[in-house]
Amino acid sequence: MAWTELLREVPDFPAPGVLFRDVLPVMSDPDAWHEVLDGMEALLKATGAEALLAPEARGFLIAAPLADRLTIGLVPVRKPGKLPRPILREAYSLEYGDNQLEIEATVPLAGKRVVVVDDVLATGGTVTACARLAQRLSADVVGYAFLIELKALGGRDKLDLRTAEVMSLLVL
Amino acid sequence: MAWTELLREVPDFPAPGVLFRDVLPVMSDPDAWHEVLDGMEALLKATGAEALLAPEARGFLIAAPLADRLTIGLVPVRKPGKLPRPILREAYSLEYGDNQLEIEATVPLAGKRVVVVDDVLATGGTVTACARLAQRLSADVVGYAFLIELKALGGRDKLDLRTAEVMSLLVL
Repeated sequence: MAWTELLREVPDFPAPGVLFRDVLPVMSDPDAWHEVLDGMEALLKATGAEALLAPEARGFLIAAPLADRLTIGLVPVRKPGKLPRPILREAYSLEYGDNQLEIEATVPLAGKRVVVVDDVLATGGTVTACARLAQRLSADVVGYAFLIELKALGGRDKLDLRTAEVMSLLVL
Repeated sequence: MAWTELLREVPDFPAPGVLFRDVLPVMSDPDAWHEVLDGMEALLKATGAEALLAPEARGFLIAAPLADRLTIGLVPVRKPGKLPRPILREAYSLEYGDNQLEIEATVPLAGKRVVVVDDVLATGGTVTACARLAQRLSADVVGYAFLIELKALGGRDKLDLRTAEVMSLLVL
């Protein structure tokens, strides 16, 4: 079965008016999930990424196997209070509310080519905050990679794409 | 550098009196992280696991690449409100407070050999809740795998080990 057939649409989750794209059923099917990871791996390889940044928590599920396949570092970006200090913090807005994200300030990212990885590109708030955190650590953000890009929400327009590209397996 | 040398100890985090073992610096070093994943992969292979269960969020970082390597399903166990319904929920106590965990009720785990994967075995509350969720979906929990087991906290004694084993890369 193609991985796209395993995607589940959940109306009004996690908030009224939001159509949630549930990628978890894909992860329960090892062959479908390999298809996803193979596709993402090919996209990332072309970027020459030296590290992946992933926002908690679904981003971890995708970025962790990709960092393993590419033998590059994985840097988790977390919600407030989850990481021991010293940390850097960025506030951002997302499709359903405001939030903050943190990164360990000691992560050696200076001068490294970094790609931000998440499951879905919606309004772009989460990955923009990730990119800002990477830039504050003097990383070179060269791309944003997603399983699914939700075109109507315009997230792509909010990303700084002068020196970075957007890669999506599926555009809806 | 051996992966154990990259572990960072953080006193009084996330609560007073807790000595936090930070595994994130290991993930920033691809060779050290491969060493960890190679060791975990060997442990898991011997169990004949057909799916991995991982609690949010650090568990995802470890279980996701292992499920990819073993070509088996990955089932995320999440904090309340993160998963669309229908869900199953379990309450549990942990080293620093009480919590609840949820699993998607539609995950096809019946009759499957399942291993619960997390970064650290402390008091055992989190992984016991994961195991109960798997059992409620009629899975056969055959093991618990950790990077680090904190012996003094006695988590091993709380797990039902009549038909499951504990696997830890490092016992402290």
